[in-house]
Amino acid sequence: MSKMLDEIREQPAALERTLQAERKPIEKLRSLLDREKPRLIMLVARGTSDNAAQFGRYLLEVATGIPVTLAAPSIFTLYKAKFNFDGILVIAISQSGESTDTNLVLERAREQGTRTIGITNEADSTLARLAEHVFLVHAGREKSVAATKTYTGQLLVLYMLAHALGANIALDDLTRIPEWTQAALGLEPEIARRAERYRFMDHALVVGRGLNYANAFEFALKLMETCYVVAERFSSADFLHGPIAMVAPDFPVFAFAPSGPTWNSMAETLDKLQTLKAETVIVTDAGNTDAAARATRTIRLPHKLPELYTPIPYIIPAQIFAACLAAQKGLVPDKPRTITKVTLTM
Amino acid sequence: MSKMLDEIREQPAALERTLQAERKPIEKLRSLLDREKPRLIMLVARGTSDNAAQFGRYLLEVATGIPVTLAAPSIFTLYKAKFNFDGILVIAISQSGESTDTNLVLERAREQGTRTIGITNEADSTLARLAEHVFLVHAGREKSVAATKTYTGQLLVLYMLAHALGANIALDDLTRIPEWTQAALGLEPEIARRAERYRFMDHALVVGRGLNYANAFEFALKLMETCYVVAERFSSADFLHGPIAMVAPDFPVFAFAPSGPTWNSMAETLDKLQTLKAETVIVTDAGNTDAAARATRTIRLPHKLPELYTPIPYIIPAQIFAACLAAQKGLVPDKPRTITKVTLTM
Repeated sequence: MSKMLDEIREQPAALERTLQAERKPIEKLRSLLDREKPRLIMLVARGTSDNAAQFGRYLLEVATGIPVTLAAPSIFTLYKAKFNFDGILVIAISQSGESTDTNLVLERAREQGTRTIGITNEADSTLARLAEHVFLVHAGREKSVAATKTYTGQLLVLYMLAHALGANIALDDLTRIPEWTQAALGLEPEIARRAERYRFMDHALVVGRGLNYANAFEFALKLMETCYVVAERFSSADFLHGPIAMVAPDFPVFAFAPSGPTWNSMAETLDKLQTLKAETVIVTDAGNTDAAARATRTIRLPHKLPELYTPIPYIIPAQIFAACLAAQKGLVPDKPRTITKVTLTM
Repeated sequence: MSKMLDEIREQPAALERTLQAERKPIEKLRSLLDREKPRLIMLVARGTSDNAAQFGRYLLEVATGIPVTLAAPSIFTLYKAKFNFDGILVIAISQSGESTDTNLVLERAREQGTRTIGITNEADSTLARLAEHVFLVHAGREKSVAATKTYTGQLLVLYMLAHALGANIALDDLTRIPEWTQAALGLEPEIARRAERYRFMDHALVVGRGLNYANAFEFALKLMETCYVVAERFSSADFLHGPIAMVAPDFPVFAFAPSGPTWNSMAETLDKLQTLKAETVIVTDAGNTDAAARATRTIRLPHKLPELYTPIPYIIPAQIFAACLAAQKGLVPDKPRTITKVTLTM
C-alpha cells in the first residue's frame, strides 16, 4: 500500500494531537485579539495549503464577519508593490514552512509591524521563525508528496483560529471531528471497490460550494497530482456561469453535498447534471436524505453532520478515492512525476 | 461567421467609446476618493465578469497598494453572515447588471452606507440603479453568449478606476490600448489557419501570472464554453505546486508570456514544459525576444507592449482562437449548449 494511504489513516490521531496541543496557545491568542480586532485578514499560501486558505477564507468570513483576502504573492515577489498592511492580520500556511513566496509576504508584513500568524507542520521551519504567533499541525512528518494529513490539520487550526477571533465556535465543538474522521475512514473498503470503475477516466469536474469549495480544489488537486486526471474545480454557482457547457452525457462530476445553507444551490446543479446525463459521484452524510436520488453514485458518511463541520470528514473519502484510483491506474501516489515535496517559487 | 467573431472585431471602437465617455466621471471620482481613501477594495462578480474582477484584484493592488479582496457571494446569499463593510469600497461588475448574487452583495453594502461602484454594459440594469457610482462599458448590446467585448471593456474601466484611486496611471496612457487591440485583430487570418491543428484537442491548460492571470481564466472559460474543451487555468507558480504532474508529452498548454516582472517565472515554467515535451502555444509581443525559443508555437503581437498594458491586447488572439476552434469543431460559439446569456444564481 502507499504512504499516502497510511497517512490518510493517521488523520484522526493527528487531529486529536493538534486539538490538545494548541488549545492553550489559542485561548491566549483569543484574549489578545479580543483587545485588538483586525479589520482585515490576509491568508497566504501555495498548493494544498492554499486550498486550506480557501477554506479559511469562507470559515473566517462566515464565522467572524471580518473581511478576508487570499494574498496574491506575486504582488510582493514580482511587482514589489508598496502595500499597506495597516489593520491587517496575516495568516501564513505552509506544510514545510519553506515556501519562499509565502515567507516573503510574511517578512514584508513584519517589516510594517503587522500581526502575523503561522500555521505549519514543521516547528523548526523558516515560517515558524518568521511568524509572531505559530500554531503547529501535529501530523508527524508527511512522507507522501500528495498532502493529506497536513491539509486536515491546517483546516482544524483554522477552526481554532476562528475561535480565537471571537467566532461562535467553542473548542469543545471541535472534539467530535476526529471521531467523524475515523468514521469516514471506515468507508475505505467500499471506496477501494468503487475506484475500479474510473480506471480509464482521464478528465473530471469537482464541484463544491461555501465551506466545501476548498475541498473541490483539494480533491481536484489530488486527482491531478496522483492520478494525472485533468480535474477542473468550480463552485456550483460559477459552474453554471459557463463551464457546464462542457458537460456531455457520461461526463464524470464529483460533488460535496452536505445539507444546510449550500444544499439548494448544489441540488439545482445536480438536477441540471442529471438532465445532461452526466455521471455524478457525491460525498454526503446521514443528515442529507435528499442527496442520493440526485446522483449516480453516493458516498455517505454515517453520522449526521452540521454543515459547519463537514469539510474535514468530507475530504477523507476523496483522499481515499484518489489513492485507490492511482493504484488502479498503476501509479504510485507518493511520488508523482515531475513534482517534489517542497516547491520553491517566486 | 459567428456573432462572437463580429463582436471580437468591434473591440477597438468599443474601447475608444468607453475611454471618451467615462473620462469625466472618472476624474470626478478621483477628486472624491482623494479625500477619503478606502482601506480595502472588494470586487464582486460572476463568470467572465469575475475574470475581469480577478484582473482588477492584481491591477489595483499593484498600482495602489490598497488591499483587494474578491467577494465570495455565498457568504451573503447563503450563509447570511453579519459582515463588516467598514472602510470598504465595493466594486460590482456584471455585463447584464442582472446577476442576482452580485446585486445582493451590493444591496448589503449600501445598507451599511458603504461606497459602491458598479461596472456594467447596461445603463438600465438593476446594478446600475443599485450602485452609487456607475461606469458604463460602451460595447453595445452583446449578442454572443460568450462574452468578449464586455470583458475588455470591464478591464479598461478597471484601469480608469485605478487612476481614480490615485494610481500612477494617466488616462492618456490608456489611449494606445485601442490601437494595440486593433493590431492584435490583424492576427486573425494567421490564428484561423493555426486553429485547425487543435481540431481534436479535448483538454488543455492555460497559464498566466500576475496581471495576465485573469486572462488564463478567461481564455480557459472561452475554451470550455465555446469549444467544450476541458481547460484548466493556473498561475505559473501554483501550476508548479502539483498540477504540472498531469503533463505528459503532447499535452497542450497555452500561456500568456509578456516581458517584465512575470517573465522569469513564466520562462521557468516554459522550460519545464519543454523538458516534458508538452506542446506550448504562447501569446507574447515584440518586446519579448526570449519567448519564441521556449514555445512550440508563438502568437506575437506586433508592438512592444509595457507589461502593465498587455492584458487587453493579449486576450484578443485568445478570443479569436476560441471562435475559430469552435468553427473547426463544427460548433456555434454564440449559443453554447446548456447555458444562457444571463445566469441567475444565489
